[in-house]
Amino acid sequence: MKPLGNLPSLDAVVAELGKLPGIGPKSATALGYHLVSLPTERVKRLAQLLEVLPDKIVHCSVCGMLTETDPCAFCLSPSRDRSIVCVVEESLDALSIEKSGAFTGVFHVLGGTLSPLDGVGPAQLRIKELLERLKSDEIKEVILATNPSVEGEATASFLRTLIADLETGIELSRFARGLPIGGDLVYTDGETLALAIQTRKPMENQ
Amino acid sequence: MKPLGNLPSLDAVVAELGKLPGIGPKSATALGYHLVSLPTERVKRLAQLLEVLPDKIVHCSVCGMLTETDPCAFCLSPSRDRSIVCVVEESLDALSIEKSGAFTGVFHVLGGTLSPLDGVGPAQLRIKELLERLKSDEIKEVILATNPSVEGEATASFLRTLIADLETGIELSRFARGLPIGGDLVYTDGETLALAIQTRKPMENQ
Repeated sequence: MKPLGNLPSLDAVVAELGKLPGIGPKSATALGYHLVSLPTERVKRLAQLLEVLPDKIVHCSVCGMLTETDPCAFCLSPSRDRSIVCVVEESLDALSIEKSGAFTGVFHVLGGTLSPLDGVGPAQLRIKELLERLKSDEIKEVILATNPSVEGEATASFLRTLIADLETGIELSRFARGLPIGGDLVYTDGETLALAIQTRKPMENQ
Repeated sequence: MKPLGNLPSLDAVVAELGKLPGIGPKSATALGYHLVSLPTERVKRLAQLLEVLPDKIVHCSVCGMLTETDPCAFCLSPSRDRSIVCVVEESLDALSIEKSGAFTGVFHVLGGTLSPLDGVGPAQLRIKELLERLKSDEIKEVILATNPSVEGEATASFLRTLIADLETGIELSRFARGLPIGGDLVYTDGETLALAIQTRKPMENQ
């Protein structure tokens, strides 16, 4: 649905909103009209927050997590178990795992999955940084917590081979099946996720 | 879901997004993280579009429609039928009616419905402006196209009394109610179904 009449500034906002994930053309139009109905200062506040957002957020130089302070709060926290590293695709996956309450280790954010057709190879992910981290004696276990999707499984397999080649004796695990195949960590409820963490299995038994 | 660790600028964006209609806490978080993953220039473009939006959009001084030029494109268009005025709650309602292709008249946007508990009385809506417009000889019919909700019905009843009191002989109408085309009996609410049964029509007249 295109906005009515002569409204190019609203058209432009609706077009940008419609490019965001989960916002279809109808929702984008409804959001655009809602924004116009809000008090000016609320729209301007959102504009100003968005204006500074990209400048404030960086990736943690240790684990790749989105953060405003580098290293991130996880990497600096004295209460996290540094012997276990949970490797995830995106920072938002770490958020879901953290909310389940079943994981107290540290994270490593790959920044995606291997996807040769989209030009994403090992060099486009934080894999070199992961292998560097694993040279530390401190680390006893790595959970390969990529999504249970085709790309996530392929990325986990690829990492398993690389990590085995390091011959560090680090245990590898993957979350227990129970996550729906083709599902997404971000949309999994905390209880299911907690169970999947608690019943994770050594990788050779999968 | 609160964002992870030390991310106050992302927290703030997520909080603002979560106040928009149809965006729950999970969607707001996912959108916030998605925005961070976008190229900086795309986020800044959205910020700049939002920054100018409230300054560019006004209400048409004739019909109350959102517009960037006053009077709006509808009120200026020589091809609209000025003898029929469709009274709607919001500009977005006019958009839906326009997209149906079944209406070629002009609009009048009330700016909401009567809602005494929320402090919205006749003075808070564009009712005085509507009555002024109806003094023109040009207008033969007014469609009271407020929503088929409790507030919409009450507002339509209130307007019917006011317009009858004008003694202009203007015809008043309201959209037909019944089952939506392509709808499913099973998913139709009881009230709509009851009304559709009670106002059923002989088949040859449909």
